[in-house]
Order: sequence, then structure tokens, then C-alpha cells
Amino acid sequence: MNINTKLDEEFSHQQFRQGHDAGRMETEYMTLARCFAAVENGIAVLSNLNGRVSHIYYGAMGEFLGIAGRGTHHRIESIWEEEILSHVHPDDLIAKQLQELKFFQYAKKDCSGDPSGYSLESCLRMADASGTYHAVTHRIFYCNTNDRDIWLALCLYSFGTEGKGDAIIRNNTNGEVIRLTENDYTAILSNRETSVLRLIEQGKSSKEIAGMLSISVNTVNRHRQNILEKLHAGNSIEACRTAKELRII
Amino acid sequence: MNINTKLDEEFSHQQFRQGHDAGRMETEYMTLARCFAAVENGIAVLSNLNGRVSHIYYGAMGEFLGIAGRGTHHRIESIWEEEILSHVHPDDLIAKQLQELKFFQYAKKDCSGDPSGYSLESCLRMADASGTYHAVTHRIFYCNTNDRDIWLALCLYSFGTEGKGDAIIRNNTNGEVIRLTENDYTAILSNRETSVLRLIEQGKSSKEIAGMLSISVNTVNRHRQNILEKLHAGNSIEACRTAKELRII
Repeated sequence: MNINTKLDEEFSHQQFRQGHDAGRMETEYMTLARCFAAVENGIAVLSNLNGRVSHIYYGAMGEFLGIAGRGTHHRIESIWEEEILSHVHPDDLIAKQLQELKFFQYAKKDCSGDPSGYSLESCLRMADASGTYHAVTHRIFYCNTNDRDIWLALCLYSFGTEGKGDAIIRNNTNGEVIRLTENDYTAILSNRETSVLRLIEQGKSSKEIAGMLSISVNTVNRHRQNILEKLHAGNSIEACRTAKELRII
Repeated sequence: MNINTKLDEEFSHQQFRQGHDAGRMETEYMTLARCFAAVENGIAVLSNLNGRVSHIYYGAMGEFLGIAGRGTHHRIESIWEEEILSHVHPDDLIAKQLQELKFFQYAKKDCSGDPSGYSLESCLRMADASGTYHAVTHRIFYCNTNDRDIWLALCLYSFGTEGKGDAIIRNNTNGEVIRLTENDYTAILSNRETSVLRLIEQGKSSKEIAGMLSISVNTVNRHRQNILEKLHAGNSIEACRTAKELRII
């Protein structure tokens, strides 16, 4: 299971108790997305996490990256804007997905008040048609008002400045910032789990690892299971790949 | 004459040959400004440089800074949002005005294509009701399409991150950035003019300055006149104040 699947699961586990003005709200945010693309010339993606559809509006950036013409509007039957994501640098993509998972969990559980007061902000590298990378600012807003069930997400891509540092969650009602650093990802695995994963990566079997760390095979297998869960990976190879991308091992 | 007056003059010297859909465009940008305040919780100011009116939309930031309640909409008979500008740190305000003048001149003369493809982006310090300063990102977009007469300006204030560096003009159609550094302001005056202004600041008379620099009093007075013009100042005291704020002297 990769991180997108994990996010999908978390989205789907919501109850979606929407009020009667849900339709009006969606229309309003479609207007915003369209305006954003027109004024900031970026790319705006409004995803309905319940209806599993997205509206994508392209400003000049869409044309520059060779994705879609300026002023274009696409409706897709998915909440993942695959065509746009395929332009994101692979290293940034996995970081982005983990940041989104953290932001979603923060919005659902940890933030005080309405999740719509917060945004996730990060810097991505995105490739144009010739494969040259450009610095892009990526922002996510959840369009809630007084409800923990998040059903509308607005993603804004616009040209940004490189080296702005790590991703942040910003409280837009008072300017407070929570930094999501690489350390957050390192802390995903315990030291023992990291040791186990390093040995898995070297091709050792559970029995060999048990011997090397002086623990039982059962314990190694429990660690394995926890590693897969924590990294949202379907098997050891995927777990190693994710961990290396996150620079955990 | 201060910089705002200079900007006012430049705005007014335009011809405003608007097409028949000017009203529709203004309504559309009012929608955008309202949406921005709602989603990003910032403050959006849409100014009609021809009609000399502004529409101001407040998100939670307006409330946080003690200016106006979240969701409020004000219409003012001016293109200067004085109440908001009074919260900007005095040092940043004068820099902001010079940046705006540069951006306007760039949009009118130097940029290639439609000015609406560009934005001015800078970091300001803004005070809340208790006088504590907060980092705010300030962006200006001109809402033109295929016309050099700039009649709609959209200013967006949102919480930002300190130390992002100098102001930039961004080409939002390809990500290119033009940095407006302090050097730009230093370059406003020639070396000789800077010397003259330093002596003026020390309280020297034109005759004394002429003697010290071995030039004629007429030349000193010509320099004085150029300094006032370049710094958009009404008299020597104002010129010294501006030059010090810009760290030219």
C-alpha cells in the first residue's frame, strides 16, 4: 500500500455529514479556483473527496509546463491530478504525499478550530516538457467551515522561489507556523526498526536478522509488520524504497 | 511631493481606454478578492485606479490585526487603503511605495506582453492592535488583459515568513524573477548627488557645499533639484529622511 492509498483510505473513512449548502460551497470554490488560475497564472485543483472528482483550472503555468493551455478547465473522475503530479520531481512527490498525510491528520485531530484556517505550504520541483525543473510553490487548503469532515480540498500550484526550506503548516488566522522537517519522517521508525530495515535492505533473512540482533524471529517479524504499516508500504522492497527516499536509511 | 503622490500622478496620466467589458472584469475581480479573503484568510484590496475607489475584503487576518471583522467588505473612496497601511512598519512602508512605483513603471514600459502576467511580491511587518509586528506577504497584481493602461490593481496581504529577502517582480507565466534590492535604491542617486545630500544632511549651505566640492553654487542647486525629483521629496528635510530610510546616506 503506498501513501496515496493510505490517504485515500483516510479520506474515505470520513462521514461526510454535509449541510444543505454543500453545492453552493463547491460552486464558490470552483469560482475561486478559476480566478486563481486567471490571476496568479498557476494551476488550481479543487477535489471533492466525497464525490471523487476534481476540477482543474490552468493559468499560463499549465502551458509553460506543457500540460494544458491557459484558460483550460478539466474535470477528472479522480481526486489525484495524476497528469500534474507526473511533472513533480520523484523525490519531492513522496515527501509531498507524506506532508499531505500529516496535514490531513493535523486538520482532523490536532488543529484548534475550523481546519479551513490552516494551509500546507511547500516548495516542489516541477519539470517542463523538456525535463527542466522549476521551483513551484504548492499550497493546500481544506474548504471546511465548522466540520471535521474534510470533503473539499483546494491545491494551488504557482511559480515559487527555490530554497524556501521545509514544508510548513500555516495557521492563516494568526500567522503561526508549524514546520514539517525531515526529522518528522526520521521519527516514523524506532531505532530498532531502522536497524531491522537496514538489514532487510542488505538482503538478510528474518532468521539472519534475529541472530545478528539477538532477538527472536517472531520479534523480527513483528518489526517487519510495523515498518510496513508505518511507511504505508505493501512489501519490504517498497518499504526500503520509501525509507531511502525519506533518507531514513 | 511624496511617493504616493508621484504614484497617483503616474496612475492619472494614463488614458484608460477600457473596452466594453470593463464592468464585468471589475465584478470578476471583486469575486476573486472576496474568495481570497475567505480562503487564505488574508486581506484583499481591489483598487480601481480610474474610478478612484477600492473594495476591501477581510479574512481572519483583519480581525487579528484589529482592523475589521472576518468576512467584512468595505468600499472606500480612495485607491489607498490608509487604515491597512497605517499598520505597516514605517521603514517597510516607504520601501513598499518605491517598490510599487518600480513595479508600475516596469508594467507600463519594460515588461514583455500583458502586465497581468507579473506580480510584485514582498515581505512586510504589520502591527496588531498591541503594536506587535508580524511577517506579512504582500502581493500586487494588475488585472489587465492586452492593454498598457492599468486600471485595476489587486493587493493581497497574507501571513508570511520573515527573512524571505528583498522584494521581487515575478513573471507568473514562466517563473522568472527580477529582484528589487537595496542597490536599486542606492542607484537612484549618483555618487556626486549622494555626497551633496550627505553635506545637506550635515546642515551645510549650498555655498559651503560648493566650496567643499570645488563646484559652483549653480551646480549644487542643480544637484539639489535632481535629488528632490529622484527621491520624490518636497524639500531637503524630506529628501534626507527618505534617503536615510533607504539607507542611501
